[in-house]
Amino acid sequence: MPVPAAVRLGTGRVLIDAKTTIALTDFVDNRLRAGVTRALVRLQDRTGLVLSREFAANADAATLVVACKGPGLSPPGLGEDESYTLDASRQVVLSANTVVGALRGLETFLQLLAGDRDGFFIPAVSIQDRPRFPWRGLLIDAGRHFEPVEVIKRELDAMAAVKLNVLHWHLSEDQGFRVESRKYPKLHELGSDGQYYTQDQLREVVEYARMRGIRVVPEFDMPGHVMSWVVGYPELASAPGPYTIARKFGVFDAVFDPTRPDTYRFIDSFIGEISKIFPDAYWHLGGDENNGKQWKANPKIQEFMQKRGIKDTAGLQTYFNQQLIGILRKHGKRMMGWDEILEPGLPKEAVIQSWRGQRSLVDAAKQGYDSVLSAGYYIDLLNTAATHYAVDPLPASSDLTPAEAAHVLGGEATMWGEWVGPETIDSRIWPRTAAIAERFWSPRDTASVDDMYRRLAVVSVQLEELGITHLRNADVLLRRLTAGADPAPLRVLADVVEPVKGYQRGGQQSGMTTLGPLTHLVDAVSTDSLGAREVSGLVEHLLSDAPHFMLGRDQLQTRFASWRDEHAGIVRLADAAPALAEVTPLADDLAAMGAIGLDAIACLSRGIVPDAAWRDARIATLTEAGRPKAALEFPFVLAMRELVVAAAEQGQLSTMTPAEWLARVKTLAGPPRRGRGVVPVVR
Amino acid sequence: MPVPAAVRLGTGRVLIDAKTTIALTDFVDNRLRAGVTRALVRLQDRTGLVLSREFAANADAATLVVACKGPGLSPPGLGEDESYTLDASRQVVLSANTVVGALRGLETFLQLLAGDRDGFFIPAVSIQDRPRFPWRGLLIDAGRHFEPVEVIKRELDAMAAVKLNVLHWHLSEDQGFRVESRKYPKLHELGSDGQYYTQDQLREVVEYARMRGIRVVPEFDMPGHVMSWVVGYPELASAPGPYTIARKFGVFDAVFDPTRPDTYRFIDSFIGEISKIFPDAYWHLGGDENNGKQWKANPKIQEFMQKRGIKDTAGLQTYFNQQLIGILRKHGKRMMGWDEILEPGLPKEAVIQSWRGQRSLVDAAKQGYDSVLSAGYYIDLLNTAATHYAVDPLPASSDLTPAEAAHVLGGEATMWGEWVGPETIDSRIWPRTAAIAERFWSPRDTASVDDMYRRLAVVSVQLEELGITHLRNADVLLRRLTAGADPAPLRVLADVVEPVKGYQRGGQQSGMTTLGPLTHLVDAVSTDSLGAREVSGLVEHLLSDAPHFMLGRDQLQTRFASWRDEHAGIVRLADAAPALAEVTPLADDLAAMGAIGLDAIACLSRGIVPDAAWRDARIATLTEAGRPKAALEFPFVLAMRELVVAAAEQGQLSTMTPAEWLARVKTLAGPPRRGRGVVPVVR
Repeated sequence: MPVPAAVRLGTGRVLIDAKTTIALTDFVDNRLRAGVTRALVRLQDRTGLVLSREFAANADAATLVVACKGPGLSPPGLGEDESYTLDASRQVVLSANTVVGALRGLETFLQLLAGDRDGFFIPAVSIQDRPRFPWRGLLIDAGRHFEPVEVIKRELDAMAAVKLNVLHWHLSEDQGFRVESRKYPKLHELGSDGQYYTQDQLREVVEYARMRGIRVVPEFDMPGHVMSWVVGYPELASAPGPYTIARKFGVFDAVFDPTRPDTYRFIDSFIGEISKIFPDAYWHLGGDENNGKQWKANPKIQEFMQKRGIKDTAGLQTYFNQQLIGILRKHGKRMMGWDEILEPGLPKEAVIQSWRGQRSLVDAAKQGYDSVLSAGYYIDLLNTAATHYAVDPLPASSDLTPAEAAHVLGGEATMWGEWVGPETIDSRIWPRTAAIAERFWSPRDTASVDDMYRRLAVVSVQLEELGITHLRNADVLLRRLTAGADPAPLRVLADVVEPVKGYQRGGQQSGMTTLGPLTHLVDAVSTDSLGAREVSGLVEHLLSDAPHFMLGRDQLQTRFASWRDEHAGIVRLADAAPALAEVTPLADDLAAMGAIGLDAIACLSRGIVPDAAWRDARIATLTEAGRPKAALEFPFVLAMRELVVAAAEQGQLSTMTPAEWLARVKTLAGPPRRGRGVVPVVR
Repeated sequence: MPVPAAVRLGTGRVLIDAKTTIALTDFVDNRLRAGVTRALVRLQDRTGLVLSREFAANADAATLVVACKGPGLSPPGLGEDESYTLDASRQVVLSANTVVGALRGLETFLQLLAGDRDGFFIPAVSIQDRPRFPWRGLLIDAGRHFEPVEVIKRELDAMAAVKLNVLHWHLSEDQGFRVESRKYPKLHELGSDGQYYTQDQLREVVEYARMRGIRVVPEFDMPGHVMSWVVGYPELASAPGPYTIARKFGVFDAVFDPTRPDTYRFIDSFIGEISKIFPDAYWHLGGDENNGKQWKANPKIQEFMQKRGIKDTAGLQTYFNQQLIGILRKHGKRMMGWDEILEPGLPKEAVIQSWRGQRSLVDAAKQGYDSVLSAGYYIDLLNTAATHYAVDPLPASSDLTPAEAAHVLGGEATMWGEWVGPETIDSRIWPRTAAIAERFWSPRDTASVDDMYRRLAVVSVQLEELGITHLRNADVLLRRLTAGADPAPLRVLADVVEPVKGYQRGGQQSGMTTLGPLTHLVDAVSTDSLGAREVSGLVEHLLSDAPHFMLGRDQLQTRFASWRDEHAGIVRLADAAPALAEVTPLADDLAAMGAIGLDAIACLSRGIVPDAAWRDARIATLTEAGRPKAALEFPFVLAMRELVVAAAEQGQLSTMTPAEWLARVKTLAGPPRRGRGVVPVVR
C-alpha cells in the first residue's frame, strides 16, 4: 500500500535469513546509504535476525541489489522521478533512476516481506511502479497545538512508508506562532507560549525530510489568521489592538493592513530570513478565512480602496497577494494559497489549494493554474478512510482536457490542529492517511474499499515500527480515564463508538481551549471503528438471510450480550473514576441496544411478530442512542433500527420476495439520522 | 509512593472540579511556576477538566496553596532541603523551604488525587515529609546503546515523579562515545556511529533536570572502558592499536596509558571543556573493570611502575586516580568512582560507588569516604522489584557508628545498556525503580512487599502520563512479532514468563551485537510477571487448604486450561510469523504445565493418589520446562512441582498435620532450580 502501478506475481521466493545482505551498485550517496540502512534495521527488527551492516561487495551473491542511476533533484523538487522497478526471483533487484525512486522501492520491499514455517521470504514478483500524481502531501498544523520535533519526525517516517512526498507545515496561526525569528523575536517570544521550533530544529526537520525524499513547504498564513503575529507587532494589524494569543477556535478578525508599505517591508524581511531555511521552491501564504471586518471598519483602508478602485475586500486581498507574489519571487519562491486567492488578477504562477470543494480545483486548472486538492481529504473531520478513499483529484467523470488535467498536481490530507496534541495526533492521521496516500499514488482504478481496509490493517501495524503511536496510545488514554483500573469493560464500548464527525465536537465541548485536556474517551477511540463496521455488516448479513436469519446470528448475539453484560463493569469503573461520568450515558445506550438486539433476534429466529408498541418503544430508544454524547456516536444505529423493523415486519415476508422485503425494511428503518458521506466543510 | 516520612489521615476532602485554582504565596520563580503548571496540566489531563492556567490572586479561595520560602541551592547540590509539608482540610496547603521541596510536594499532591461518584478530590490528610537519603539516583548508560534526548527527558520526568534526585549519566563506553567534543572532535566523530549528544542537547538536559530538582552527574569511564575514545586517539591507549568501536559486550583490554603526561593533558583539556556544561559538584570517572592486560604487556609502563615502586596494576590505577583527582579539583569537581578505586592512597574527597557488594560501602564509610550503594540495585539483572526493595543502604543490622553512617549518602539504580534501546528501556527501568526510589526516600521500616506491589501498580500507570512507554510498548513488540496478527494467544504466554535473570541472556543470544535487534519476546515481557506471581500464590493457597484443596482451585483451573487451549493459537501465529519460532518450545512447555496442573488438581480434589511413575514423568516434564528458552523462564515451575508432589503425597495427609504435610511437600518438590534472590553481579 499504495498498490504499485504494475505487479506481476511469479513463483518461488527469495529467502530472508541471518545471511541476508544488500549490495549497492551504480550510484551511491549518503542519502541512499542511510535509507538502505534504515530499511535493514527495520528488516532486522521485524525478523529478530542479527543482520550485517556491511554492504555486500559481491552483488551477485546479495539478497537485495539496489541499482540507482543518479542522485535526482537537489534540492528535492516537484519534478522528481520517483519511479522504480523491483524484481524478485533468484535475488531481489531494485532499480531506480534517482535516490528517491530507490527509497520508494525500499518501502515496497519491506511491505513484501512474508513468512511461513520455512522462515521469512520475499515472494517472487515483478513490479514496475511510479506515482499517479507528483504532489502527495500531508498538512500538519503546528499552530493551534504545537507538535514537538520528534512528532514531526515520526510523521515524516510514516509518510515515507506510504510514499507521500510533501510535508505542508502550517507554522503560524491565531493560536500560536511556531518559528524562531531572529529579525522579529517578538513573533515567537510573545506569540508561542514558549512553544516554537528553533531555526536549528527547522533545518533538522527539513534535512530529515530530504533524507526520506520528502519536500517541506512551509505555510505562514496571512493576511488573516495572524493573531499570534500581532501580539508582538500590533502595527501590522488593521485595527489598533492590543492583541493576545487566541485560546478558542474559529475565525478571528485580526488581519494585516495591506495598505501600509511597512507591512510589506516586514513581510519581505521575515520571508528573507525564513526562506533560507526552506529550500523548497514553493511557499504557502495561506490566504484563507479573512472575514474582512477590520478592513471594512478602518477608514484609512476604505480610503485606500476607493483611491485605487478596489471594489471589495476580496479585491483588496488580491492586491495583497500581488504584492506578496512579488516578494516571494524576489526570494526565489512560487506562491501557493488556499482557494480564496483564486480571484481575477491573480498571477498564473500561483498554486491553488482547493479546500472549499472540488469545484475550485477544476476552475483553477481550466484557468491555467496549478492546483492541489484538499477538499475531501480533511482528516480532522474524522470521517472514515473509505470516505476519503472515494475522493479522486481527477475522477473518471472529469471534463478537463489533458492539458488542463496536467495542472492538477495531486492532493494533500490536512491535519488541522484544533483537537489533537502530541499524544493523539498519530491516531487522527493514521492509518487513514495511508488510504489517501494510495489514492494519490496508485492507478485510478484501485478502488475496492474492502481490499483497501484489508491492506490498511497490515500497514497500520507496520507504522508502529516507525514510532507511530496510534494503536499503543489508545490504551494509555483508557487507563488514564479509569485511573489505572483494568479498562476491559470500557474497551467493549470504546471499540464500537466513533468521534462525532465534522466539527461537532466544538459544540459538545464548548468550554475547550488550546490549553485544555485532550484526554477524553473521544480522544482514545478510532475514527474507523472496526467493531462498528462489523456490527453493521453482521446485521446486513442476517437480514439478507431472510426468512432463516441464521447468517451471523451467533456472532451478533455474543456481541449484543457483551454490551448488556459489561454495562455494570463500566458503571463500576465510573464510580471510582469521575472522568468517566460523561461516558455512562453511552454505556446505558449500548446496554439498551444490546437488549434490543437480542430481543429482535429472538423474534426473528422464532418467527414471533412483535406489535407496534414493541417496535415504537425500541425505535424511540434507538433515536436516543443516535444522539451524540461526550462527542461520540454509534455508527450502527441505523442497522439496529433495521433489525427492529425487520422483527416487526416479518409478517410481510409471506407476501413478497426476500429482496423486496429487505428493501421495505430499509425504507421503513431509514433514513439514517444523517448521511454518512462527506460532511460539508465548515471550519 | 515513596511513602512519606509521616502521614496523618483526616476526615473530609478538598474537591477538585472545574473551578480548581492554585495560588503561589511567598517565594516564586520560573522553576516553581513551571513546576506548578506541569502539575496543573497533569491534573487537567487526568480529570478531563479545563482548568485555568492563571494563578489565583486570592490564596484563601484557592484549592491549592503553594507556600515556598526560597529558591534553594543554585546550582542544585547535594545538601538541598527537599522537605515539605502538605495539609489538606479546607484547602490544600503545600509548604516548603525550597523550590525543590515544593516540587516534591506537588508529586505527592498528584498521587493523592482520588475520585468517586461525587467527583475528584484530595482526601483530608496531614503529611510531613523529607528524604531518608540525600543521594537518590538512576544511572542511564547511553554508551552501549544510545538513548536520544527525548528518552532521557521522559526518564527525568518519571524520576521526579518518584522523588529521585540524581541522573548519573554514563556517557562513554567501549561501545560508544556519546558527547560532542569541540576540542577533540574525533571522539564523537569516530567513536559514536553518529549517535551522540550535541553540547546544546547536554545543556538542554541539564536544565530540564534542574527544573525538576534533579542533579546530573556525568560519567566518563576511565582508564578502562575507553575503546571508543582510542578509535580517534589511539595515542591515549597503552597498546598501539588501531582500535574500532566495540560491538560485543564484556571487558575489553583498551586502557589509557597512565605514564604519559600527554594523557593527562588530554584529559585535563577534555574535562575543562565538558565540565562547563555540567554544573554539578561531582564528576564520575568510572574506574571499574580495568583488566590490566595492556599495562602488564607494555615494557615502558612496567619500567615506570618499577621506578616509582608501584607494585601492581591496582597501585598504578591509584596513581592514575591521584592525578585525576588533582585535575578534577582544578575544575572545581569532586571525584566519584566505582568501588575498585577504593585502594590505599585514595584521597578522602573521593566518593565511592559500591557495585561489587555492600561490603565496599561499609569499608568506605568506615575509612571516612562518602559512598553510594548500587550493589542490589542493578536493574539490568532483571530481578523483581521485591528483590531490590529488600536491599537497604543502611540496614538495621549495620554496625556503622552514626558518624560513619552519615557517609552513606544513598543509592543508585543502574540501567546498564547492553540489552535496552529506546523502545524497551522504559520497561526495564519502570516500574521497578519506583520501588528502589521508595527505599531511598521512605523510612527504613517501610518494608511490606505486598503493599509495595499494590502501590507500585498505581504508580506504574501514572508514569504513562509522563510519556513512559513500559506498558504501551509491550503490545507494540508483540504485534511486530506476530507480523500484525492479533497477539491474544501469545499474550497468555507473555503474561507468565520473565526474562532470564542476571546476565544469562548473553549466553542464550551469543550472536548479538550493539547493532542487533531488541525485538524478541524477552524484550516485550515484564521483569515482574504479575501472572506468574498469581500462579505461585494460587498454588500456595490451594496447598494450604489441605485436605480440601478448594481455595483458588477454580482460578487455577481456568488458567491451566487457557495454557492448554491457547497452544494451538500460538503455533498458528508462529506458522505465519517466523520470528516466533523460538517461542513455540515455551508454548509447548506451558501447555504441558497446563495439562499437569489440571491433572494434579483433579487428583487432589478427588482424593486420587497417582503412582510414582505418574509423578516422575511430570517432574521430568517440569524439569524441562524449568530450562530457560529464548532467554525466558517460567518463575512458577517450583510451584508446579509442589502441585505434582502434593498429588502424589496425598496419602501422607492421614499421618500428619496439614502444616507438616505441606512442609514435606515443599521439601520433596524443592529446592528450586536456583534461588530467587539476588543473582551475583558478574558483568
